[in-house]
Amino acid sequence: MELDALTEEFDRRDWQTVTETDDPVRIAMIGVGWWTREQAMPAVAAAELCETTVLVSGDTEKAASVADDSETVEHAITYEQFHEGVAADAYDAVYVVTPNAKHLPFVETAASLGKDVLCEKPMEASIERAERMVERCADHDVTLMIAYRMHTEPAVRRARDLIEEGYVGDPVFVHGNMTEPILELVPDPDQWRLDWDLSGGCAAMDIGIYSLNTARYLLDSDPVSVSGSVASVQPEFEDVPDEHAAFQLEFPGHVVAHCTASQNAHMSSHIRVTGTEGEVRVEPAFYPWDERKLHVSHGGSELTIEFEQVDQMQEEFEYFAHCLLTDTEPYADGEHGLVDIETIKSVYASAESGATIDIE
Amino acid sequence: MELDALTEEFDRRDWQTVTETDDPVRIAMIGVGWWTREQAMPAVAAAELCETTVLVSGDTEKAASVADDSETVEHAITYEQFHEGVAADAYDAVYVVTPNAKHLPFVETAASLGKDVLCEKPMEASIERAERMVERCADHDVTLMIAYRMHTEPAVRRARDLIEEGYVGDPVFVHGNMTEPILELVPDPDQWRLDWDLSGGCAAMDIGIYSLNTARYLLDSDPVSVSGSVASVQPEFEDVPDEHAAFQLEFPGHVVAHCTASQNAHMSSHIRVTGTEGEVRVEPAFYPWDERKLHVSHGGSELTIEFEQVDQMQEEFEYFAHCLLTDTEPYADGEHGLVDIETIKSVYASAESGATIDIE
Repeated sequence: MELDALTEEFDRRDWQTVTETDDPVRIAMIGVGWWTREQAMPAVAAAELCETTVLVSGDTEKAASVADDSETVEHAITYEQFHEGVAADAYDAVYVVTPNAKHLPFVETAASLGKDVLCEKPMEASIERAERMVERCADHDVTLMIAYRMHTEPAVRRARDLIEEGYVGDPVFVHGNMTEPILELVPDPDQWRLDWDLSGGCAAMDIGIYSLNTARYLLDSDPVSVSGSVASVQPEFEDVPDEHAAFQLEFPGHVVAHCTASQNAHMSSHIRVTGTEGEVRVEPAFYPWDERKLHVSHGGSELTIEFEQVDQMQEEFEYFAHCLLTDTEPYADGEHGLVDIETIKSVYASAESGATIDIE
Repeated sequence: MELDALTEEFDRRDWQTVTETDDPVRIAMIGVGWWTREQAMPAVAAAELCETTVLVSGDTEKAASVADDSETVEHAITYEQFHEGVAADAYDAVYVVTPNAKHLPFVETAASLGKDVLCEKPMEASIERAERMVERCADHDVTLMIAYRMHTEPAVRRARDLIEEGYVGDPVFVHGNMTEPILELVPDPDQWRLDWDLSGGCAAMDIGIYSLNTARYLLDSDPVSVSGSVASVQPEFEDVPDEHAAFQLEFPGHVVAHCTASQNAHMSSHIRVTGTEGEVRVEPAFYPWDERKLHVSHGGSELTIEFEQVDQMQEEFEYFAHCLLTDTEPYADGEHGLVDIETIKSVYASAESGATIDIE
């Protein structure tokens, strides 16, 4: 393979057949925290195929104030009002971005109202609740997509294409890491991420999922077993087992992925696939504010490919809306998300027993 | 910590007090394969504190021919002659670079002759034989050093200094990898690395030891437990369990190191330590012909530090000779090497049982 080919123009939206619409997907944002305000709403505002029309929040004043600053939002309602079906005519789909353990009831209500769903990852706090989410959406025949930003990130998509084209030969190893000082990013010791009942897990659940899911995406396969270890050292993390988490996944064909995640470490992220013929590495990889780069090597050559940096959330919302407008099943459907929940729960089980756990 | 300080002059030989001698350490090379001829002998020739005076080989003609090309070699003898004590007055120390399972008898003879020993890593093919090596050297009061090139590599030494100075805060994770296509590098399907009896292991034993040992060196501590998996897929690797090996080490303080090694993959190597405050990464790391670089990040800053590339073997031989001339115990003594053998043997045990193994 010629390295020249790598630098040729790359279609970052090879899924796209519809680029404009008179009838954009109208989205209700469920949860109006900083991520919604600073990442999701600007992304939807910039997108062509969707718009934010409803805000659903536990804090009516905050929601109303955010609504006032938006040109498209028609309604700011409470969680209770959402469950009562208030303003249901004003949106076609919901984006669920509450704490993990609160996703399910919103998805259930949305499904029962016939609304499609984009749900943040991890999809829920337990396997049982995640399974129920999948069932409810199927029962009501609504689309359920899990919000993995990496699936529409050009650096990751190009890495995946290269692997699929055989650039690295047969994949052998994956190394992935995502670490951050969560108490500096969100300076609240009572935040839901540190509460097992609300989160279902800390480092592995909240950010370990990036290495896990991106490994699955790059390899185009799912893990068959996992072993791992977790540790909580600082007192702020006493309610969760995993201030730090490290796990080893085995994929079909003896491919091993080593994933690390910490909520109390230097902010850093990368994912690397080493194969029989070459290597691809996305670094930085997982934080939307970092300038993602793709580093590749094959034979004696190596190259760093830089990309036009895209708004990952805009790409993701555009893709979600595109799926709805074209009646296409999203890549990351509920079953896809469920594999991550099952795998991460197995990390905790393995850390407890010291044994390798098979994933069904 | 100012990044400026990182680029200031770094004393790559802070161990050195003696820079020249009228009485260099005279070395007998035991094993005259390509590594000895192309790496070790030129390194010793360039070093100030030692010289090669004797070659010991199973192939007398080859040894004689190599001796003819050397200005310092006085004797080319057979393995049998070595064990008989032939030319013992012509060398002070031996460098043992035979297949792993053949190290012990040469070290035993050298020790009984009162000669100091630099033994290639892994030091032997089994724990029992490695322990016996340590005992024999102690019995005869000779120095035993295990030949870890990374301990005198400037990029690695600088990384270690930075970690010790607190640049990364408390270490949290290590990622290490060393992969190579051994059958392209050494195109012989009957080579000893693929023979369990001669090697005691393949990917983990031969090159996994780099990530393991360099992690120990960078963290200045030893692993307390290990889990791992191994796989041999291609027929050439049917006599060893580990064409590929992946293992997870736990160090004191909940630090986890993820190490991967393959004898049938793209040539690549790196080691990375992520801590609470920063990160250091040496990449490329482990191959002497690669241009080693140190990549560091801390707070919002990042920097790649390039070094004057040194001959790793020259540094190592100079250090070994320096230890002998100054009567200093080497950093990597027999007990140090033994920890690696015990750890790697536990990788195989863990791969077999699926359990995490405590290391005593």
